[in-house]
Amino acid sequence: MSDRPAIEIYSIGTELLNGQIQDTNSFWMAQQTAALGGYVRRIAILDDDMDELTGVLKDACQRGTRVVITTGGLGPTPDDMTVEAIAKIMGVDTEVDETLVERYMESRGIEKRADVSEGLIKMATKPKGSVAHPNPAGVAPCVESQVGETTIYSLPGPPREVEALFRQSVEDALAGIYDDVRLSLRVAVNLPESQCGPILHSVMSQYPNTYLKAFVALRERTADGQRLPVDIVVWGKKAEEAQALLDKALAEFKAQAFEKGSEVEIRDEG
Amino acid sequence: MSDRPAIEIYSIGTELLNGQIQDTNSFWMAQQTAALGGYVRRIAILDDDMDELTGVLKDACQRGTRVVITTGGLGPTPDDMTVEAIAKIMGVDTEVDETLVERYMESRGIEKRADVSEGLIKMATKPKGSVAHPNPAGVAPCVESQVGETTIYSLPGPPREVEALFRQSVEDALAGIYDDVRLSLRVAVNLPESQCGPILHSVMSQYPNTYLKAFVALRERTADGQRLPVDIVVWGKKAEEAQALLDKALAEFKAQAFEKGSEVEIRDEG
Repeated sequence: MSDRPAIEIYSIGTELLNGQIQDTNSFWMAQQTAALGGYVRRIAILDDDMDELTGVLKDACQRGTRVVITTGGLGPTPDDMTVEAIAKIMGVDTEVDETLVERYMESRGIEKRADVSEGLIKMATKPKGSVAHPNPAGVAPCVESQVGETTIYSLPGPPREVEALFRQSVEDALAGIYDDVRLSLRVAVNLPESQCGPILHSVMSQYPNTYLKAFVALRERTADGQRLPVDIVVWGKKAEEAQALLDKALAEFKAQAFEKGSEVEIRDEG
Repeated sequence: MSDRPAIEIYSIGTELLNGQIQDTNSFWMAQQTAALGGYVRRIAILDDDMDELTGVLKDACQRGTRVVITTGGLGPTPDDMTVEAIAKIMGVDTEVDETLVERYMESRGIEKRADVSEGLIKMATKPKGSVAHPNPAGVAPCVESQVGETTIYSLPGPPREVEALFRQSVEDALAGIYDDVRLSLRVAVNLPESQCGPILHSVMSQYPNTYLKAFVALRERTADGQRLPVDIVVWGKKAEEAQALLDKALAEFKAQAFEKGSEVEIRDEG
Protein backbone atom coordinates (compact mmCIF):
# COMPACT_ATOMS: atom_id res chain seq x y z
CA MET A 1 0.00 0.00 0.00
CA SER A 2 2.92 2.31 0.59
CA ASP A 3 3.30 3.65 -2.95
CA ARG A 4 -0.22 5.13 -2.82
CA PRO A 5 -0.51 8.89 -2.11
CA ALA A 6 -0.40 9.33 1.66
CA ILE A 7 -2.66 11.26 4.01
CA GLU A 8 -1.62 12.35 7.51
CA ILE A 9 -4.05 13.49 10.19
CA TYR A 10 -3.09 15.81 13.06
CA SER A 11 -5.25 16.72 16.06
CA ILE A 12 -4.02 19.81 17.84
CA GLY A 13 -4.67 20.61 21.50
CA THR A 14 -3.04 20.18 24.90
CA GLU A 15 -6.37 18.96 26.32
CA LEU A 16 -6.10 15.87 24.04
CA LEU A 17 -2.67 15.03 25.45
CA ASN A 18 -3.41 15.38 29.13
CA GLY A 19 -6.41 13.07 29.16
CA GLN A 20 -9.18 15.68 29.43
CA ILE A 21 -10.77 14.99 26.06
CA GLN A 22 -10.50 11.95 23.79
CA ASP A 23 -9.60 12.66 20.19
CA THR A 24 -12.43 11.07 18.20
CA ASN A 25 -11.97 13.21 15.07
CA SER A 26 -8.92 11.31 13.81
CA PHE A 27 -10.60 7.91 13.93
CA TRP A 28 -13.72 9.27 12.25
CA MET A 29 -11.66 10.83 9.45
CA ALA A 30 -9.57 7.65 9.10
CA GLN A 31 -12.79 5.71 8.56
CA GLN A 32 -14.07 8.21 6.00
CA THR A 33 -10.72 8.19 4.22
CA ALA A 34 -10.58 4.39 4.11
CA ALA A 35 -14.10 4.28 2.70
CA LEU A 36 -12.91 6.56 -0.13
CA GLY A 37 -10.03 4.18 -0.89
CA GLY A 38 -7.49 6.51 0.75
CA TYR A 39 -4.30 5.62 2.61
CA VAL A 40 -3.67 7.17 6.04
CA ARG A 41 0.04 6.88 6.82
CA ARG A 42 0.16 8.57 10.20
CA ILE A 43 -2.13 10.06 12.85
CA ALA A 44 -0.80 12.25 15.65
CA ILE A 45 -1.96 14.48 18.48
CA LEU A 46 0.14 17.62 18.95
CA ASP A 47 0.58 20.16 21.72
CA ASP A 48 -0.45 23.83 21.41
CA ASP A 49 3.18 24.79 20.90
CA MET A 50 4.53 26.72 17.92
CA ASP A 51 7.83 24.83 17.60
CA GLU A 52 6.06 21.48 17.86
CA LEU A 53 3.46 22.44 15.23
CA THR A 54 5.82 23.96 12.68
CA GLY A 55 8.37 21.14 13.13
CA VAL A 56 5.87 18.32 12.68
CA LEU A 57 3.86 19.88 9.83
CA LYS A 58 7.04 20.84 7.95
CA ASP A 59 8.30 17.25 8.23
CA ALA A 60 4.96 15.96 6.94
CA CYS A 61 5.22 18.18 3.85
CA GLN A 62 8.87 17.32 3.28
CA ARG A 63 8.18 13.59 3.15
CA GLY A 64 5.78 14.22 0.29
CA THR A 65 2.50 13.68 2.11
CA ARG A 66 -0.23 14.41 -0.42
CA VAL A 67 -2.86 15.65 2.03
CA VAL A 68 -2.47 16.80 5.62
CA ILE A 69 -5.67 17.30 7.63
CA THR A 70 -5.46 19.18 10.92
CA THR A 71 -8.21 19.69 13.47
CA GLY A 72 -8.14 22.21 16.31
CA GLY A 73 -6.21 25.38 16.99
CA LEU A 74 -8.42 27.66 14.86
CA GLY A 75 -10.30 29.42 17.66
CA PRO A 76 -10.08 32.99 18.97
CA THR A 77 -7.61 32.49 21.82
CA PRO A 78 -3.78 32.81 21.78
CA ASP A 79 -3.23 29.04 22.13
CA ASP A 80 -5.00 28.59 18.78
CA MET A 81 -1.99 28.80 16.48
CA THR A 82 -2.64 26.49 13.53
CA VAL A 83 -2.99 29.32 10.97
CA GLU A 84 0.17 31.04 12.14
CA ALA A 85 2.10 27.75 12.12
CA ILE A 86 1.07 27.01 8.53
CA ALA A 87 1.89 30.55 7.41
CA LYS A 88 5.37 30.06 8.91
CA ILE A 89 6.07 26.85 7.01
CA MET A 90 4.68 28.45 3.82
CA GLY A 91 7.00 31.42 4.44
CA VAL A 92 4.16 33.94 4.10
CA ASP A 93 2.34 36.43 6.31
CA THR A 94 -1.25 36.04 7.39
CA GLU A 95 -4.14 38.12 6.04
CA VAL A 96 -7.73 38.76 7.09
CA ASP A 97 -10.32 37.24 4.73
CA GLU A 98 -12.72 40.19 4.34
CA THR A 99 -15.41 38.03 2.73
CA LEU A 100 -15.52 35.98 5.93
CA VAL A 101 -15.64 39.13 8.06
CA GLU A 102 -18.64 40.32 6.02
CA ARG A 103 -20.37 36.96 6.61
CA TYR A 104 -19.76 37.24 10.35
CA MET A 105 -21.16 40.81 10.34
CA GLU A 106 -24.26 39.76 8.41
CA SER A 107 -25.01 36.67 10.50
CA ARG A 108 -24.59 38.58 13.76
CA GLY A 109 -26.18 41.85 12.70
CA ILE A 110 -22.96 43.83 13.25
CA GLU A 111 -23.19 47.15 11.40
CA LYS A 112 -19.65 48.48 11.51
CA ARG A 113 -16.38 46.70 10.66
CA ALA A 114 -14.87 48.37 13.73
CA ASP A 115 -17.35 46.55 15.97
CA VAL A 116 -16.19 43.09 14.89
CA SER A 117 -14.42 41.52 17.89
CA GLU A 118 -10.72 40.61 17.88
CA GLY A 119 -11.69 36.95 18.26
CA LEU A 120 -13.82 37.00 15.09
CA ILE A 121 -11.07 38.77 13.18
CA LYS A 122 -8.61 36.08 14.32
CA MET A 123 -10.98 33.37 13.08
CA ALA A 124 -11.17 35.13 9.69
CA THR A 125 -7.38 35.17 9.38
CA LYS A 126 -5.56 32.78 7.04
CA PRO A 127 -2.09 32.40 5.52
CA LYS A 128 -1.70 34.69 2.49
CA GLY A 129 -2.79 32.78 -0.59
CA SER A 130 -4.78 30.13 1.32
CA VAL A 131 -8.51 29.61 0.76
CA ALA A 132 -11.02 29.89 3.64
CA HIS A 133 -14.14 27.72 3.19
CA PRO A 134 -16.98 29.06 5.42
CA ASN A 135 -18.14 26.75 8.22
CA PRO A 136 -21.80 25.68 7.94
CA ALA A 137 -21.84 24.43 11.54
CA GLY A 138 -19.71 26.96 13.44
CA VAL A 139 -17.48 30.00 13.09
CA ALA A 140 -13.88 29.10 12.22
CA PRO A 141 -13.56 28.12 8.53
CA CYS A 142 -11.75 25.24 6.84
CA VAL A 143 -8.47 26.74 5.68
CA GLU A 144 -6.97 25.13 2.57
CA SER A 145 -3.25 25.77 2.08
CA GLN A 146 -0.70 24.54 -0.44
CA VAL A 147 2.88 23.76 0.69
CA GLY A 148 4.81 22.33 -2.25
CA GLU A 149 3.00 19.15 -3.30
CA THR A 150 1.07 18.97 -0.03
CA THR A 151 -2.45 20.30 0.44
CA ILE A 152 -3.23 21.09 4.09
CA TYR A 153 -6.87 21.24 5.17
CA SER A 154 -7.19 22.85 8.62
CA LEU A 155 -10.51 22.23 10.36
CA PRO A 156 -11.72 23.46 13.77
CA GLY A 157 -11.86 20.92 16.65
CA PRO A 158 -15.53 20.30 17.59
CA PRO A 159 -16.61 16.96 16.04
CA ARG A 160 -19.86 18.38 14.62
CA GLU A 161 -17.89 21.03 12.73
CA VAL A 162 -15.24 18.53 11.63
CA GLU A 163 -17.94 16.34 10.14
CA ALA A 164 -19.65 19.20 8.31
CA LEU A 165 -16.44 20.68 6.92
CA PHE A 166 -14.95 17.30 5.95
CA ARG A 167 -18.09 16.55 3.93
CA GLN A 168 -18.20 20.02 2.39
CA SER A 169 -14.54 20.76 1.65
CA VAL A 170 -12.32 17.66 1.93
CA GLU A 171 -14.19 14.52 0.89
CA ASP A 172 -14.40 15.21 -2.85
CA ALA A 173 -10.73 16.14 -3.03
CA LEU A 174 -9.73 12.83 -1.41
CA ALA A 175 -12.04 10.86 -3.67
CA GLY A 176 -10.44 12.62 -6.64
CA ILE A 177 -6.92 11.66 -5.56
CA TYR A 178 -7.65 7.97 -5.19
CA ASP A 179 -10.64 7.22 -7.39
CA ASP A 180 -10.29 3.76 -5.91
CA VAL A 181 -12.98 1.46 -4.67
CA ARG A 182 -12.45 -0.21 -1.30
CA LEU A 183 -14.23 -3.43 -0.37
CA SER A 184 -13.96 -5.33 2.86
CA LEU A 185 -15.20 -8.63 4.18
CA ARG A 186 -15.04 -10.12 7.68
CA VAL A 187 -14.55 -13.87 7.93
CA ALA A 188 -13.70 -16.22 10.81
CA VAL A 189 -11.40 -19.23 11.04
CA ASN A 190 -10.86 -21.97 13.59
CA LEU A 191 -7.11 -21.35 13.90
CA PRO A 192 -4.85 -19.80 16.54
CA GLU A 193 -3.21 -16.48 15.60
CA SER A 194 0.18 -18.15 15.26
CA GLN A 195 -1.14 -20.38 12.44
CA CYS A 196 -3.36 -17.75 10.87
CA GLY A 197 -0.68 -15.02 10.72
CA PRO A 198 1.49 -16.62 8.02
CA ILE A 199 -1.60 -17.15 5.82
CA LEU A 200 -2.48 -13.46 6.04
CA HIS A 201 1.02 -12.53 4.96
CA SER A 202 1.11 -15.02 2.18
CA VAL A 203 -2.13 -13.64 0.71
CA MET A 204 -0.99 -10.02 1.07
CA SER A 205 2.32 -10.68 -0.65
CA GLN A 206 0.66 -12.60 -3.51
CA TYR A 207 -1.98 -9.91 -4.09
CA PRO A 208 -0.93 -6.24 -3.93
CA ASN A 209 -3.66 -3.81 -2.81
CA THR A 210 -4.98 -6.26 -0.24
CA TYR A 211 -4.79 -5.95 3.53
CA LEU A 212 -5.64 -8.83 5.87
CA LYS A 213 -5.79 -8.50 9.63
CA ALA A 214 -6.79 -10.94 12.41
CA PHE A 215 -8.54 -9.52 15.48
CA VAL A 216 -7.22 -11.53 18.41
CA ALA A 217 -9.12 -9.45 20.97
CA LEU A 218 -12.42 -10.45 19.29
CA ARG A 219 -11.66 -14.19 19.30
CA GLU A 220 -14.53 -16.44 20.44
CA ARG A 221 -14.00 -19.75 22.27
CA THR A 222 -16.15 -22.53 20.87
CA ALA A 223 -16.70 -26.21 21.60
CA ASP A 224 -14.46 -27.25 18.71
CA GLY A 225 -11.72 -24.65 19.28
CA GLN A 226 -12.09 -20.96 18.48
CA ARG A 227 -13.29 -18.46 15.92
CA LEU A 228 -10.69 -15.85 15.01
CA PRO A 229 -12.19 -12.93 13.01
CA VAL A 230 -10.16 -11.75 10.01
CA ASP A 231 -10.84 -8.70 7.84
CA ILE A 232 -9.97 -8.90 4.17
CA VAL A 233 -9.72 -5.41 2.64
CA VAL A 234 -8.98 -4.69 -1.01
CA TRP A 235 -8.65 -1.63 -3.23
CA GLY A 236 -9.28 -1.49 -6.95
CA LYS A 237 -9.76 1.12 -9.66
CA LYS A 238 -13.33 0.04 -10.33
CA ALA A 239 -15.99 -1.91 -8.46
CA GLU A 240 -15.57 -5.02 -10.63
CA GLU A 241 -11.80 -4.95 -10.31
CA ALA A 242 -12.09 -4.66 -6.51
CA GLN A 243 -14.65 -7.46 -6.37
CA ALA A 244 -12.48 -9.73 -8.51
CA LEU A 245 -9.49 -9.06 -6.24
CA LEU A 246 -11.56 -9.72 -3.14
CA ASP A 247 -12.77 -13.02 -4.62
CA LYS A 248 -9.19 -14.10 -5.38
CA ALA A 249 -7.87 -13.12 -1.96
CA LEU A 250 -10.74 -14.95 -0.26
CA ALA A 251 -10.20 -18.07 -2.38
CA GLU A 252 -6.48 -18.13 -1.57
CA PHE A 253 -7.19 -17.54 2.13
CA LYS A 254 -9.74 -20.38 2.16
CA ALA A 255 -7.34 -22.77 0.42
CA GLN A 256 -4.54 -22.12 2.89
CA ALA A 257 -6.85 -22.24 5.94
CA PHE A 258 -8.28 -25.53 4.68
CA GLU A 259 -4.76 -27.00 4.46
CA LYS A 260 -4.35 -26.22 8.17
CA GLY A 261 -7.70 -27.85 8.94
CA SER A 262 -10.12 -24.92 9.13
CA GLU A 263 -13.22 -23.91 7.25
CA VAL A 264 -13.74 -20.17 6.63
CA GLU A 265 -17.04 -18.66 7.80
CA ILE A 266 -18.30 -15.49 6.08
CA ARG A 267 -19.32 -13.00 8.76
CA ASP A 268 -20.01 -9.56 7.46
CA GLU A 269 -19.59 -7.47 4.34
CA GLY A 270 -18.10 -4.06 5.22
CA MET B 1 4.76 22.90 31.30
CA SER B 2 7.31 22.36 28.57
CA ASP B 3 10.42 22.14 30.78
CA ARG B 4 8.99 19.05 32.52
CA PRO B 5 10.29 15.63 31.41
CA ALA B 6 8.27 14.57 28.38
CA ILE B 7 6.46 11.33 27.61
CA GLU B 8 5.48 10.27 24.08
CA ILE B 9 2.95 7.54 23.31
CA TYR B 10 2.94 5.52 20.07
CA SER B 11 0.26 3.05 18.96
CA ILE B 12 1.48 0.76 16.22
CA GLY B 13 -0.75 -0.97 13.69
CA THR B 14 -2.11 -0.45 10.17
CA GLU B 15 -5.60 -1.42 11.42
CA LEU B 16 -5.61 1.75 13.58
CA LEU B 17 -4.87 3.93 10.55
CA ASN B 18 -7.41 2.50 8.14
CA GLY B 19 -10.39 2.89 10.44
CA GLN B 20 -10.87 -0.76 11.43
CA ILE B 21 -10.10 -0.33 15.11
CA GLN B 22 -10.10 2.80 17.26
CA ASP B 23 -6.96 3.38 19.30
CA THR B 24 -8.23 3.67 22.89
CA ASN B 25 -4.92 2.74 24.56
CA SER B 26 -3.30 6.14 24.01
CA PHE B 27 -6.12 8.07 25.63
CA TRP B 28 -6.23 5.69 28.58
CA MET B 29 -2.48 5.99 29.11
CA ALA B 30 -2.65 9.78 28.71
CA GLN B 31 -5.23 9.88 31.50
CA GLN B 32 -3.12 7.64 33.75
CA THR B 33 -0.04 9.72 33.03
CA ALA B 34 -1.85 12.99 33.78
CA ALA B 35 -3.13 11.54 37.07
CA LEU B 36 0.51 10.82 38.03
CA GLY B 37 1.46 14.44 37.29
CA GLY B 38 3.17 13.47 34.03
CA TYR B 39 3.46 15.47 30.81
CA VAL B 40 2.51 13.83 27.50
CA ARG B 41 4.09 15.83 24.67
CA ARG B 42 2.93 13.81 21.68
CA ILE B 43 0.70 10.86 20.77
CA ALA B 44 0.88 9.15 17.38
CA ILE B 45 -0.42 6.15 15.51
CA LEU B 46 2.15 4.49 13.24
CA ASP B 47 2.00 2.06 10.35
CA ASP B 48 3.48 -1.47 10.51
CA ASP B 49 6.44 -0.32 8.45
CA MET B 50 10.07 -0.65 9.51
CA ASP B 51 11.27 2.69 8.09
CA GLU B 52 8.34 4.54 9.64
CA LEU B 53 8.90 2.92 13.07
CA THR B 54 12.67 3.35 13.24
CA GLY B 55 12.47 6.93 11.89
CA VAL B 56 9.81 8.10 14.34
CA LEU B 57 11.17 6.33 17.42
CA LYS B 58 14.72 7.54 16.72
CA ASP B 59 13.46 11.12 16.43
CA ALA B 60 11.60 10.74 19.74
CA CYS B 61 14.81 9.63 21.48
CA GLN B 62 16.89 12.35 19.83
CA ARG B 63 14.64 15.14 21.10
CA GLY B 64 15.30 13.95 24.64
CA THR B 65 11.94 12.35 25.38
CA ARG B 66 12.27 10.85 28.86
CA VAL B 67 9.82 7.97 28.37
CA VAL B 68 8.41 6.49 25.16
CA ILE B 69 5.53 4.05 25.50
CA THR B 70 4.58 1.93 22.50
CA THR B 71 1.62 -0.43 22.16
CA GLY B 72 1.21 -3.06 19.46
CA GLY B 73 3.56 -4.85 17.12
CA LEU B 74 4.72 -7.47 19.66
CA GLY B 75 2.77 -10.46 18.34
CA PRO B 76 3.94 -13.59 16.50
CA THR B 77 3.39 -12.47 12.89
CA PRO B 78 5.84 -10.76 10.50
CA ASP B 79 4.01 -7.40 10.64
CA ASP B 80 4.82 -7.27 14.38
CA MET B 81 8.14 -5.44 14.21
CA THR B 82 8.39 -3.27 17.33
CA VAL B 83 11.22 -5.29 18.92
CA GLU B 84 13.27 -5.35 15.74
CA ALA B 85 12.76 -1.60 15.21
CA ILE B 86 13.96 -0.80 18.73
CA ALA B 87 16.97 -3.12 18.38
CA LYS B 88 17.86 -1.21 15.18
CA ILE B 89 17.80 2.20 16.83
CA MET B 90 19.78 0.78 19.79
CA GLY B 91 22.28 -0.64 17.30
CA VAL B 92 22.10 -4.14 18.81
CA ASP B 93 20.93 -7.60 17.77
CA THR B 94 17.92 -9.31 19.24
CA GLU B 95 18.10 -12.27 21.64
CA VAL B 96 15.64 -14.84 22.94
CA ASP B 97 14.76 -14.43 26.64
CA GLU B 98 15.09 -18.05 27.85
CA THR B 99 13.37 -17.29 31.16
CA LEU B 100 10.27 -16.27 29.21
CA VAL B 101 10.50 -19.40 27.04
CA GLU B 102 10.58 -21.51 30.21
CA ARG B 103 7.48 -19.70 31.50
CA TYR B 104 5.66 -20.40 28.22
CA MET B 105 6.66 -24.10 28.40
CA GLU B 106 5.47 -24.40 31.99
CA SER B 107 2.17 -22.62 31.48
CA ARG B 108 1.36 -24.65 28.35
CA GLY B 109 2.74 -27.98 29.49
CA ILE B 110 5.33 -28.09 26.68
CA GLU B 111 8.04 -30.62 27.58
CA LYS B 112 10.79 -29.94 25.05
CA ARG B 113 12.34 -26.60 24.02
CA ALA B 114 12.19 -27.85 20.41
CA ASP B 115 8.39 -28.05 20.60
CA VAL B 116 7.99 -24.35 21.39
CA SER B 117 6.38 -22.71 18.32
CA GLU B 118 8.11 -20.08 16.23
CA GLY B 119 5.44 -17.60 17.26
CA LEU B 120 6.15 -18.08 20.97
CA ILE B 121 9.89 -17.77 20.37
CA LYS B 122 9.26 -14.51 18.51
CA MET B 123 7.23 -13.20 21.46
CA ALA B 124 10.11 -14.09 23.82
CA THR B 125 12.59 -12.12 21.68
CA LYS B 126 13.89 -8.71 22.80
CA PRO B 127 16.70 -6.32 21.91
CA LYS B 128 19.99 -7.45 23.52
CA GLY B 129 20.25 -5.79 26.92
CA SER B 130 16.53 -4.97 27.21
CA VAL B 131 14.38 -6.33 30.05
CA ALA B 132 11.24 -8.42 29.36
CA HIS B 133 8.54 -8.12 32.05
CA PRO B 134 6.17 -11.13 31.85
CA ASN B 135 2.57 -10.37 30.89
CA PRO B 136 0.02 -11.29 33.59
CA ALA B 137 -2.88 -11.00 31.11
CA GLY B 138 -1.49 -12.41 27.88
CA VAL B 139 1.62 -13.72 26.16
CA ALA B 140 3.85 -10.95 24.75
CA PRO B 141 5.79 -9.23 27.55
CA CYS B 142 6.44 -5.56 28.29
CA VAL B 143 9.90 -4.90 26.84
CA GLU B 144 11.88 -2.16 28.60
CA SER B 145 14.73 -0.70 26.56
CA GLN B 146 17.18 2.14 27.14
CA VAL B 147 18.21 4.40 24.23
CA GLY B 148 20.46 7.15 25.57
CA GLU B 149 18.40 9.10 28.12
CA THR B 150 15.13 7.62 26.85
CA THR B 151 13.42 4.61 28.39
CA ILE B 152 11.12 2.82 25.95
CA TYR B 153 8.35 0.62 27.34
CA SER B 154 6.85 -1.58 24.59
CA LEU B 155 3.48 -3.10 25.43
CA PRO B 156 1.27 -5.42 23.35
CA GLY B 157 -1.89 -3.97 21.74
CA PRO B 158 -4.96 -5.52 23.44
CA PRO B 159 -6.38 -2.97 25.94
CA ARG B 160 -6.70 -5.54 28.75
CA GLU B 161 -2.99 -6.37 28.44
CA VAL B 162 -2.02 -2.70 28.12
CA GLU B 163 -3.83 -1.96 31.37
CA ALA B 164 -2.25 -4.89 33.26
CA LEU B 165 1.29 -4.17 32.04
CA PHE B 166 1.04 -0.40 32.51
CA ARG B 167 0.02 -0.96 36.15
CA GLN B 168 2.68 -3.61 36.69
CA SER B 169 5.70 -2.22 34.85
CA VAL B 170 5.27 1.46 33.88
CA GLU B 171 3.18 3.33 36.46
CA ASP B 172 5.73 3.38 39.30
CA ALA B 173 8.50 4.51 36.98
CA LEU B 174 6.42 7.47 35.78
CA ALA B 175 5.40 8.38 39.33
CA GLY B 176 9.10 8.31 40.26
CA ILE B 177 10.04 10.71 37.45
CA TYR B 178 7.47 13.33 38.36
CA ASP B 179 6.66 12.87 42.03
CA ASP B 180 4.16 15.62 41.41
CA VAL B 181 0.60 15.92 42.58
CA ARG B 182 -2.03 16.92 40.02
CA LEU B 183 -5.32 18.51 41.04
CA SER B 184 -8.13 19.61 38.78
CA LEU B 185 -11.39 21.45 39.20
CA ARG B 186 -14.19 22.08 36.72
CA VAL B 187 -16.01 25.41 36.96
CA ALA B 188 -18.48 27.21 34.70
CA VAL B 189 -18.80 30.87 33.72
CA ASN B 190 -21.46 32.94 32.00
CA LEU B 191 -19.10 34.30 29.34
CA PRO B 192 -18.58 33.64 25.61
CA GLU B 193 -15.31 31.91 24.69
CA SER B 194 -13.94 35.12 23.18
CA GLN B 195 -14.16 36.86 26.58
CA CYS B 196 -13.15 33.84 28.63
CA GLY B 197 -10.04 32.96 26.57
CA PRO B 198 -7.92 35.97 27.60
CA ILE B 199 -8.70 35.24 31.28
CA LEU B 200 -7.44 31.67 30.93
CA HIS B 201 -4.21 32.91 29.41
CA SER B 202 -3.74 35.60 31.98
CA VAL B 203 -4.06 33.06 34.83
CA MET B 204 -1.72 30.56 33.12
CA SER B 205 0.96 33.17 32.53
CA GLN B 206 0.74 34.47 36.13
CA TYR B 207 0.91 30.98 37.65
CA PRO B 208 3.34 28.43 36.15
CA ASN B 209 2.28 24.78 36.49
CA THR B 210 -1.34 25.63 35.82
CA TYR B 211 -3.38 24.73 32.76
CA LEU B 212 -6.82 26.22 32.07
CA LYS B 213 -9.06 25.12 29.23
CA ALA B 214 -12.61 26.08 28.21
CA PHE B 215 -14.82 23.38 26.66
CA VAL B 216 -16.88 25.15 24.02
CA ALA B 217 -18.51 21.93 22.83
CA LEU B 218 -19.95 21.38 26.34
CA ARG B 219 -21.44 24.89 26.59
CA GLU B 220 -25.01 25.07 27.92
CA ARG B 221 -27.52 27.73 26.86
CA THR B 222 -29.40 29.22 29.81
CA ALA B 223 -32.07 31.86 30.33
CA ASP B 224 -29.48 34.47 31.37
CA GLY B 225 -26.87 33.60 28.72
CA GLN B 226 -24.69 30.49 28.81
CA ARG B 227 -22.55 28.28 31.01
CA LEU B 228 -19.09 27.64 29.59
CA PRO B 229 -17.24 24.84 31.45
CA VAL B 230 -13.58 25.48 32.27
CA ASP B 231 -11.07 23.02 33.72
CA ILE B 232 -8.40 24.39 36.05
CA VAL B 233 -5.51 21.89 36.35
CA VAL B 234 -2.46 22.41 38.57
CA TRP B 235 0.69 20.45 39.44
CA GLY B 236 2.67 20.75 42.68
CA LYS B 237 5.39 18.86 44.51
CA LYS B 238 3.10 18.04 47.43
CA ALA B 239 -0.63 17.92 48.00
CA GLU B 240 -0.68 21.17 50.03
CA GLU B 241 1.42 23.01 47.46
CA ALA B 242 -0.90 21.86 44.66
CA GLN B 243 -3.98 22.83 46.68
CA ALA B 244 -2.54 26.28 47.43
CA LEU B 245 -1.80 26.81 43.74
CA LEU B 246 -5.31 25.67 42.75
CA ASP B 247 -6.81 28.11 45.30
CA LYS B 248 -4.76 31.00 43.90
CA ALA B 249 -5.56 30.17 40.27
CA LEU B 250 -9.27 29.89 41.09
CA ALA B 251 -9.26 33.18 43.01
CA GLU B 252 -7.57 34.98 40.12
CA PHE B 253 -9.95 33.40 37.60
CA LYS B 254 -12.96 34.45 39.72
CA ALA B 255 -11.70 38.02 40.07
CA GLN B 256 -11.21 38.44 36.32
CA ALA B 257 -14.52 36.74 35.43
CA PHE B 258 -16.31 38.99 37.94
CA GLU B 259 -14.82 42.08 36.23
CA LYS B 260 -16.45 40.89 33.00
CA GLY B 261 -19.77 40.37 34.78
CA SER B 262 -19.82 36.64 35.53
CA GLU B 263 -20.00 34.57 38.69
CA VAL B 264 -18.00 31.31 38.73
CA GLU B 265 -19.89 28.12 39.56
CA ILE B 266 -17.94 25.18 41.01
CA ARG B 267 -18.92 22.04 39.09
CA ASP B 268 -16.74 19.08 39.84
CA GLU B 269 -13.48 18.18 41.54
CA GLY B 270 -11.37 15.93 39.33
